[in-house]
Amino acid sequence: MKQATKSRKSVEYYVDGILQGNRVVLAQAITLVESSLPSDQDLASRVLEKTIQKSGNSIRIGITGSPGVGKSTFIEAFGKFLTRLGKKVAVLTVDPTSQKTKGSILGDKTRMPQLATNPDAFIRPSSAGETLGGVANNTREAILLTEAAGFEIIIIETVGVGQSEVAVRNMTDFFLLLMLPGSGDELQGIKKGIMEMADLLVITKADGENLPRAKRSQAEFQQAVHTLYDRAGGWIPKVLTASALLSTGLEDIHDSISKFISTKKQSGDFATNRSLQDIAHMHDNFQQRLKDEISNSSFLRGKFTEIEALVKTHALTPGEAGKKLLGYFQQYIQAKAPENTRP
Amino acid sequence: MKQATKSRKSVEYYVDGILQGNRVVLAQAITLVESSLPSDQDLASRVLEKTIQKSGNSIRIGITGSPGVGKSTFIEAFGKFLTRLGKKVAVLTVDPTSQKTKGSILGDKTRMPQLATNPDAFIRPSSAGETLGGVANNTREAILLTEAAGFEIIIIETVGVGQSEVAVRNMTDFFLLLMLPGSGDELQGIKKGIMEMADLLVITKADGENLPRAKRSQAEFQQAVHTLYDRAGGWIPKVLTASALLSTGLEDIHDSISKFISTKKQSGDFATNRSLQDIAHMHDNFQQRLKDEISNSSFLRGKFTEIEALVKTHALTPGEAGKKLLGYFQQYIQAKAPENTRP
Repeated sequence: MKQATKSRKSVEYYVDGILQGNRVVLAQAITLVESSLPSDQDLASRVLEKTIQKSGNSIRIGITGSPGVGKSTFIEAFGKFLTRLGKKVAVLTVDPTSQKTKGSILGDKTRMPQLATNPDAFIRPSSAGETLGGVANNTREAILLTEAAGFEIIIIETVGVGQSEVAVRNMTDFFLLLMLPGSGDELQGIKKGIMEMADLLVITKADGENLPRAKRSQAEFQQAVHTLYDRAGGWIPKVLTASALLSTGLEDIHDSISKFISTKKQSGDFATNRSLQDIAHMHDNFQQRLKDEISNSSFLRGKFTEIEALVKTHALTPGEAGKKLLGYFQQYIQAKAPENTRP
Repeated sequence: MKQATKSRKSVEYYVDGILQGNRVVLAQAITLVESSLPSDQDLASRVLEKTIQKSGNSIRIGITGSPGVGKSTFIEAFGKFLTRLGKKVAVLTVDPTSQKTKGSILGDKTRMPQLATNPDAFIRPSSAGETLGGVANNTREAILLTEAAGFEIIIIETVGVGQSEVAVRNMTDFFLLLMLPGSGDELQGIKKGIMEMADLLVITKADGENLPRAKRSQAEFQQAVHTLYDRAGGWIPKVLTASALLSTGLEDIHDSISKFISTKKQSGDFATNRSLQDIAHMHDNFQQRLKDEISNSSFLRGKFTEIEALVKTHALTPGEAGKKLLGYFQQYIQAKAPENTRP
C-alpha cells in the first residue's frame, strides 16, 4: 500500500529517536517499513542498517487462537503483568486481511486501552501489506526496529487466518496457543497443525462458571499433547489455564516461557534458531522480490495466464509449462538490462 | 543423476509402446524422464507431449507409514486384491534418499515378488533425483506415462522421509496412512501433521496375537480423529484394520476409497483438485528451474554464501540481503543473454 510522503524526516531523525526509545518516532519508522514508495523503502533500509546492531535483545513471543478466544484481553492482561515486572513490552499484529485505515488503527488501540496508555508498552496495529509474504516481511523489520528502541518482550499476535500462524511461528522464539474452555468435541475451530506448533497451550476465561470446564479441558489437552505429539528428548508443551478478568495464571505462563528460553539459551538452540530464522527471512525476501518482478510485469502476467490455460486443458504438461515460464522470465530480465551493462 | 544414453530409441518407439501398454517400454520412458541429460530430457518431453491426452484416467493413491509398519507387504496384498477385481495397478515410490543402483532396483522388485510378476501390475522402483523437488517432478511425470499405458490405479508409496509425504499428498487423489497396532503412547513415530493429511488410517498386522491390540488402537484413533480434526462438512477419515498375511480388511479399504472418489467426482472436487495440482506442479517446476539456475552458477553460489555470512553477523538485514541477491540474480541472467537478443 502506498503512503503519502508527508513530512518524511532525515535518517538521523529516525535513528536517534529509535535509539532513545521514542515511541512516536518508532511508529513513524515502522510506517516507512510498510510503505511501498521507493523513496520510503530507501529511507527504511538506511534506518534499519544503522539500528540493526542494537536489535535482537528481546524475547519474541507469538500468540494465536481462534476468534472469540479473548486474544486482546489476554494480551492486555499479560502485557500489564510483564510491565509490572519492569519489562518494556511491545505488541505487533500480523493480519494479512486487514486494510490499514485510520479506523483500524484506532480500533487496535482501543482493543487494549490500558496497555495503549502504559509508558512501558508499545502497541502497533496490523501491519500493512497486500500479501502474507509482504506483511510478514514488514513485521520482521518492525520487530528489529522495536528491539532497537529497547523493548524487551515483543508479542506478535496473529489473527489466525491462512498461513499467518506459520509465518509468526517462523519469526518468534516461543509460540503460545490460546484455547477456549470446552471439551474436545467442541474444539472444532482449532486449525490442523496449529496445536503441534505450540510451545505452550493456555485455556482462557478460566473463571466463574467456566472454571470447572477449563480444568477439564486442561486435563484432556495435556493428555492429547502427550499421546499424539512426538517431542523426543525435546520440550513437552504444558497446558495452563488463565483468567484475564482475575489476572490469574499469568505467573505460571511467564515461568513456562522463561524456563523454555533459558533452556534454549543454555543449549545454544536459541541463537541457532534466530540465525536460521534470519537466513530463512533472507530467502523469503528474495523469493518475494522474484514474485514481485512477475506480478509487476504485464508481459509476464499475461504469459503466466496463457500457459496456465494450456495446462488446464492438458495441451501442455506441467513440466513443459515450467520450462516455458523460465524462458519468458529470462527474456523479461534480459530486456530490462540497462544499456551500460551490454557490450 | 546422469544416465548413459545407451540405446535410446525414437519418440514413436516410446509413444507406441506406452499406448500399447508395454511395461518394458514404459519403464524405459520413465528412465528418460529421470535422466538429467539434456538429450534425454528433450526426448522425454516429446514423449510426454504425445501421450498426455491419454493420461489422467486413474485413481492416484498415496500411501505412507513409519518404517516397520509393513508398507511393502500391505501394498503387495492390496495390489493383488485390486488386480483380482480386474484392475491394472502400478506402484511408484518417492524416496529422496535413495541412490538408484542396480541393487536397489532388484531390492524394490523383490520387496513385492508376487505383484512384480503379475501381468496386470507394474512396479517401478524409487524415482531418481538429487532433491525432493526433482524426485517429485519425476514421479509426477512417471504417473502421466503410467496412466497413458492404461494403468487404472496408481499407488505412490512414500518412505516418509522429510517432506516427502507432503509431496505425495500433492500429487494424489487419496492419501492413506498405515499404522502399527499399539496404544497412543507407543505411537511416537507418527510424524506431526501426517495424520491430518490422511483420508484413511489403516492399522496393519491385525492378525493373531496382535488382533486385540489392533482393535483397541482402532477405537482410540477413531476417537482422536473425531476429537482433534476439523473437517467441517467434509470427509471424516475412517480408521480400519487390515492383515496382509490373511488378506483381511482389504475390501473395506477399497470401499472407503471408492466412496471417497465417487463423492468427490460428483461434487466436482475431484476434477478441481486435479487441476489445482497441475497448476501447482507447473509453479513448482518453474521454482525448481529457478533454483537450478542458482545452484548451477558458481558466481551465484559464491554470492549467496557471502551474503549469508553478512546476515549471520548482523552486518546486513535479511531484507537488504534479499535485495542484493535479486540484484546478483538479474546480473547473472543478463550476462547469459544470447547475442541476438541484444540491440
